Amino acid sequence: MHATISAQTLLTRELLARRRPGYSLEAPFYLSESILAADMEHIFGKHWIFVAVEPQIPEAGDYITVDFGNNSILIVRDDDMQVKAFHNVCRHRGSRLCASQRGSVGNIVCPYHQWTYDLSGKLLHAKHMGDDFDPSTSGLKAVHVRSLGGLIFICLAENPPEDFEHMAQEMTPYIAPHRLADCKVAAQVDIIEDCNWKLTMENNRECYHCVSNHPELTISLYEYGFGYKPDAQNAAGLQRFKDVTAANHARWESMGLPSAEIDTLDDRVTGFRTQRLPIDRAGQSQTMNTEVASKKLLADFVDPALGGLSFWTQPNSWHHFMSDHIVSFSVLPISAGKTLVRTTWCVHKDAVEGVDYTVDNLTAVWNATNAQDRRLVEESQIGVANGAYEPGPYSPFTEGLVEKFCNWYVGRMRELTR
Amino acid sequence: MHATISAQTLLTRELLARRRPGYSLEAPFYLSESILAADMEHIFGKHWIFVAVEPQIPEAGDYITVDFGNNSILIVRDDDMQVKAFHNVCRHRGSRLCASQRGSVGNIVCPYHQWTYDLSGKLLHAKHMGDDFDPSTSGLKAVHVRSLGGLIFICLAENPPEDFEHMAQEMTPYIAPHRLADCKVAAQVDIIEDCNWKLTMENNRECYHCVSNHPELTISLYEYGFGYKPDAQNAAGLQRFKDVTAANHARWESMGLPSAEIDTLDDRVTGFRTQRLPIDRAGQSQTMNTEVASKKLLADFVDPALGGLSFWTQPNSWHHFMSDHIVSFSVLPISAGKTLVRTTWCVHKDAVEGVDYTVDNLTAVWNATNAQDRRLVEESQIGVANGAYEPGPYSPFTEGLVEKFCNWYVGRMRELTR
Amino acid sequence: MHATISAQTLLTRELLARRRPGYSLEAPFYLSESILAADMEHIFGKHWIFVAVEPQIPEAGDYITVDFGNNSILIVRDDDMQVKAFHNVCRHRGSRLCASQRGSVGNIVCPYHQWTYDLSGKLLHAKHMGDDFDPSTSGLKAVHVRSLGGLIFICLAENPPEDFEHMAQEMTPYIAPHRLADCKVAAQVDIIEDCNWKLTMENNRECYHCVSNHPELTISLYEYGFGYKPDAQNAAGLQRFKDVTAANHARWESMGLPSAEIDTLDDRVTGFRTQRLPIDRAGQSQTMNTEVASKKLLADFVDPALGGLSFWTQPNSWHHFMSDHIVSFSVLPISAGKTLVRTTWCVHKDAVEGVDYTVDNLTAVWNATNAQDRRLVEESQIGVANGAYEPGPYSPFTEGLVEKFCNWYVGRMRELTR
Ligand code: FES
Ligand code: FES
Ligand code: FES
Ligand SMILES: [Fe+3]
Ligand SMILES: [Fe+3]
Ligand SMILES: [Fe+3]
Repeated sequence: MHATISAQTLLTRELLARRRPGYSLEAPFYLSESILAADMEHIFGKHWIFVAVEPQIPEAGDYITVDFGNNSILIVRDDDMQVKAFHNVCRHRGSRLCASQRGSVGNIVCPYHQWTYDLSGKLLHAKHMGDDFDPSTSGLKAVHVRSLGGLIFICLAENPPEDFEHMAQEMTPYIAPHRLADCKVAAQVDIIEDCNWKLTMENNRECYHCVSNHPELTISLYEYGFGYKPDAQNAAGLQRFKDVTAANHARWESMGLPSAEIDTLDDRVTGFRTQRLPIDRAGQSQTMNTEVASKKLLADFVDPALGGLSFWTQPNSWHHFMSDHIVSFSVLPISAGKTLVRTTWCVHKDAVEGVDYTVDNLTAVWNATNAQDRRLVEESQIGVANGAYEPGPYSPFTEGLVEKFCNWYVGRMRELTR
Repeated sequence: MHATISAQTLLTRELLARRRPGYSLEAPFYLSESILAADMEHIFGKHWIFVAVEPQIPEAGDYITVDFGNNSILIVRDDDMQVKAFHNVCRHRGSRLCASQRGSVGNIVCPYHQWTYDLSGKLLHAKHMGDDFDPSTSGLKAVHVRSLGGLIFICLAENPPEDFEHMAQEMTPYIAPHRLADCKVAAQVDIIEDCNWKLTMENNRECYHCVSNHPELTISLYEYGFGYKPDAQNAAGLQRFKDVTAANHARWESMGLPSAEIDTLDDRVTGFRTQRLPIDRAGQSQTMNTEVASKKLLADFVDPALGGLSFWTQPNSWHHFMSDHIVSFSVLPISAGKTLVRTTWCVHKDAVEGVDYTVDNLTAVWNATNAQDRRLVEESQIGVANGAYEPGPYSPFTEGLVEKFCNWYVGRMRELTR
Repeated sequence: MHATISAQTLLTRELLARRRPGYSLEAPFYLSESILAADMEHIFGKHWIFVAVEPQIPEAGDYITVDFGNNSILIVRDDDMQVKAFHNVCRHRGSRLCASQRGSVGNIVCPYHQWTYDLSGKLLHAKHMGDDFDPSTSGLKAVHVRSLGGLIFICLAENPPEDFEHMAQEMTPYIAPHRLADCKVAAQVDIIEDCNWKLTMENNRECYHCVSNHPELTISLYEYGFGYKPDAQNAAGLQRFKDVTAANHARWESMGLPSAEIDTLDDRVTGFRTQRLPIDRAGQSQTMNTEVASKKLLADFVDPALGGLSFWTQPNSWHHFMSDHIVSFSVLPISAGKTLVRTTWCVHKDAVEGVDYTVDNLTAVWNATNAQDRRLVEESQIGVANGAYEPGPYSPFTEGLVEKFCNWYVGRMRELTR
């Protein structure tokens, strides 16, 4: 609304300019509502954001609403089975259209004065508006939406980053074999963390904290998979991990399952990373006993030991694709100090609860791990709010992906706020 | 506190200047705490605000407190039976004087150090203050107060708008016959709506939303009473409504009950509107069965079918006077996104609860309607907070009074902030 | 972060400059978050703050955390039995170190990635950091700490006010005889008052409100001890109080218990006041029956009638030392409108609960008094937030110490913000 640059913008730029590589961010990046507003404008407003999986809206007319910052996005499957996205706000006097998080509709009817839109966003009926009123000017505002193998990404910008195509091309061979379109949602859990979204993301990008904090997750996770300072004591263990990985990669690739690492986290607008990693012990799935959680495997898989294909995206998601289930995480800012983490578990749509799988067993590892991570990031939020906090050094061995997240964030923000 | 004009004031002026007629207001008018502060200063600080009815303080020494924004106003009936109003704050070290919403006192005694004021606001006692202290400098700060046929209005300004007199002159013949002074309060209900006060007011100024949202209210309300796009299908119904109204107006006027519409909503500082409208079906009262809620009629009425005299005031009230009861609504801002709606039902002071009326029957229609309106305005608040909201067009047939409210608001604000 | 002076700072300076002596402060001093931030920076950031008593951490490894504003301070007793204080924040990525309010540790281990500090703040272990990492740069940030006869004061400034020494020299003879080091904590109660910390302090600095509000406290308190407008009616009572005080002072001084008033509240950076006052009726202790609450007297006392040695400090504490127990109050701001009041009761460490004392009897007077004061200061906060509040005059007889508190505050702020 201003032609002049606000003091807040200048301060944000100064903080971005002086960011010290290899060190955690300064406190205002986690505390300031005006930086959160800038994050919403530039990061969540101009990048591809992961918000849902297609099995959440299997039928025509199914919809979900996804809220973050001051956005509420309505995601619907239209009558041609296409996924569409709209701003969840009436073009008359602005009432929210859909208050529920999910549902099924023929048309979208505003609760206030019953303006009625079809699933393409077109205004069909508006009583009492008179003959001078042109309904075509008052359709729902559309939002760009793309599905990558069933993972739904939206972009609020008018001109979304074009390199989504690169990610789609590179990732499709990895993801497609797991056939997310043939899945159903077995469980979805929302938790609200009292911390800035960047602390949630940074926590996701390292496993330095795993050994002491995640007893359930580290049953299936190889401790060497996420960075380690090499020294004489762990040389043998590290070599064994490398050998297991190499052998499995060869096996999986021969089955048509790409496994090699791709990492564009810090050199693309639509940055991502992928890697198929072996699973420890029984080697099948991220469960308490490392065996599959669902006896009905995904797609046409017959071998349950396919490791875990991880897919991390900037700025707000990560996913693990296994032989029997897929778990997806979406991180959505609510305010500077409040963040929604939505975890979705998918299994084959023909898997029968109580027979092929139980929700408790399927969700046990990540429910426990999420609760532990929540405590860690909330203690971090409290800590960085301490007036005595100052940025500290990252481990060159275990926090490289945290550094990449911060570099990407700072780089994108510098570019977009200049 | 500043000689220079703040960035906030400049922004508010810009938003006021660019307001598009015929369209809903831009989002900051509903969301910004600084605009709410401007509303409190200019609208609620410089206009006549409806706050109570005289039957709330029937006896000498009776008081109520009315809180809105950062005001708390003490309204008392003094020993000469006059209504007086004061700021509810001690002149010593500023303690709130009366914490209760209602009570009865001889003098007003501060709970902290017992400074004691009489009902005219004069400081009577203040211990330990020494001989140099002049109590006459420390009386309570008075607030302008006027009763219009028992409806209590206050004005916080030093020089209140003088056209209150016009409203009083024009409205007294309409209101006086219902004799509010001979009433008692049968029920009072406060609800807090999570929305800006202007959304509450705009919602009150149209019935476009009634047909789909107010099943109880529309029993007694003629659907044609609040605007309709004329077309071939409704021509007959509309004509019937006009005929009924004309016939009733003639009958009521002959009984000494003025009924013709007056509308100064958008062309006076103290804007208001009135109209006596027929009631549908049994034609008596805004109840579930449209019959009177109180067998003991008001004043010396013998005919229960007197329609409903509606009285709407800028910026914050509306009232319905019927043959058997009066219902009054006061809208008081708490913050940008929180508003108190206080509904008061009065019946004849000799009506006996359980015999002449029951509170449940008396309040059923408006309790239900208030709950429905609350949901509508809260969904609107959520909607206009959506970053994608933009002002939409008003119906020329059903939202004319909403437009008048917004015009009045914008006009007053432009005048007072320039 | 700014080279230029913010509008907020200019406004604060203007408010400080125009403060009217003898009158309560203007509203923004109680309401504004930016003035609270200035209070935290200049008052709580640069003065000696009372935070705890040594009996809270009797053993090596014992710690407490004390939170105020955006500070969390870790106070530990190290292996040499010295009291040390650190900022409770990890030097790696800033997690809070200790989430509990008290505990006992060998080393201080961060919950996130297990960086481990010893009780002198030295970083002992930090895995995966590589050979280039120098742990000596990443020790805990120390905070200045001093014990005055067992009362623990901290100062967050790099160069704390040097006149703490004067206070220590003058007060040690008063306090030392009560031997706080030989005490144990019998009870500690935190209450959160919904008011600015300055209202809590001002309330503490006068007893104008006592007679009408503190029925329990005024059993033991002489009404003349805290200021009175002299007149014909109270001349006799006042003379009797002076005689009792003079006689007791002579007796106590002869026992080695200094009793004369010292008052530097408004003429030192580290301002304080002390006075040993007689106790009414049985004359022994601030209890409901004015007899000792603990049969096991402090130190080597044999006479239970030692009056009450009061010790008030700027900006945030007061204490009463009696023959049988010591009660200490620490006031810690949370936000502009929220303040922690922590009350700690100490008895001789050999006193046996249920035999020598009961917690109920020990704490009865001050728990009741705190609850009454809480209501008073919360009504004051509500009152000063009223737009009609303006500063009122202090009583020259009963509010002299309130004036001294405000003078000290305003004087220090003027000095430090110029
Ligand atoms: S606001 Fe949606 S129809 Fe009026
Ligand atoms: S504040 Fe009211 S008497 Fe002191
Ligand atoms: S934040 Fe403390 S060890 Fe990492
Ligand atoms: Fe984790
Ligand atoms: Fe309504
Ligand atoms: Fe008190």
